[in-house]
Amino acid sequence: MPTAEFWYEFASTCSYPAAMRVAELAGSRGVALAWRPFLLGPIFAAQGWRDSPFNIYPAKGRYMWRDMERICDALGLPLKRPDPFPQNSLLAARVALALEGEERANFSRRVYAAEFGEGLTISDRAAIATLLAKADLDPQEVLGRAESDANKALLKAASARAAELGIFGAPCLVTEDGELFWGNDRLEQGLDWAAAKRA
Amino acid sequence: MPTAEFWYEFASTCSYPAAMRVAELAGSRGVALAWRPFLLGPIFAAQGWRDSPFNIYPAKGRYMWRDMERICDALGLPLKRPDPFPQNSLLAARVALALEGEERANFSRRVYAAEFGEGLTISDRAAIATLLAKADLDPQEVLGRAESDANKALLKAASARAAELGIFGAPCLVTEDGELFWGNDRLEQGLDWAAAKRA
Repeated sequence: MPTAEFWYEFASTCSYPAAMRVAELAGSRGVALAWRPFLLGPIFAAQGWRDSPFNIYPAKGRYMWRDMERICDALGLPLKRPDPFPQNSLLAARVALALEGEERANFSRRVYAAEFGEGLTISDRAAIATLLAKADLDPQEVLGRAESDANKALLKAASARAAELGIFGAPCLVTEDGELFWGNDRLEQGLDWAAAKRA
Repeated sequence: MPTAEFWYEFASTCSYPAAMRVAELAGSRGVALAWRPFLLGPIFAAQGWRDSPFNIYPAKGRYMWRDMERICDALGLPLKRPDPFPQNSLLAARVALALEGEERANFSRRVYAAEFGEGLTISDRAAIATLLAKADLDPQEVLGRAESDANKALLKAASARAAELGIFGAPCLVTEDGELFWGNDRLEQGLDWAAAKRA
């Protein structure tokens, strides 16, 4: 079965519709998906950005929010801008990484729905605990694992791996042969590529 | 008949496949297209960039060139990276603006094909004169109009208008109701929008 890695950052707006669409798109093509949470912050910082490029470059930011409105309208997804934007995504990323397989994918979709569908603050420990409980997981147990030194190190390693793969934004798909596809609007192309290489 | 403006910059890689595709996409939807050459340089300079973002941010640049290879492969378009990149697009933009209607569209496609299909230097006066001659235009006459003070002022005004419209990259489609669609991969969506608003 062909596989692809779905690299996503919880602070990333474009990762929201992508996270909501990608499982079905992969499934319909027979592609197994590995969900890869990571942090863009270190990658942005390495190129001199201390904030979201959508804040640093206001015209780009205005366009992105309008583009998101059109995309979410077309998909029937609610959209509510979280405040502040971008959200601090560290805790959510640690928790996602502490989960495996479908639990990770489900939790990740819940985070995006809360953050960009309801405008909730995902850096809030209680909010994350609530999302875990709704997913029938034990919040204290998962948060404990998420904040272990081992898991923190894993997230650092994942973010370093993202940079090695050439990732500079989110979301990205990476195929088995190392092709990189950036953006919600490249999901179909990337998954078609993943499926064709194994066909 | 619904109309849309196609804003393009000759130094922009993504404008190359877009320029090659947009007329057919617009025609098939019954959308009349106004070709709008402009300069991104002043817009980039206003946000502190003195070079292409694809040079300033190398990971983004590497991705863009690979993305262009895949896009051009799929479209059957040749791709040869011009040196230097980005090219100085001032002369080509002035010439395009000095032409009207189909002559402008045809000349613009010829510039992109020379620049990104053959890797030619489009700031070269002789190269532009050759492209004009191939388009059955009088190079000296057109170059004279292109470099008139009136035409230079028109190009400055067009670039200022682009900034007013919220344009921060190229290519862009702008519909009659002021919607902005950025990128080669938004042409279909933008033209669908233009057609639907008048339907």
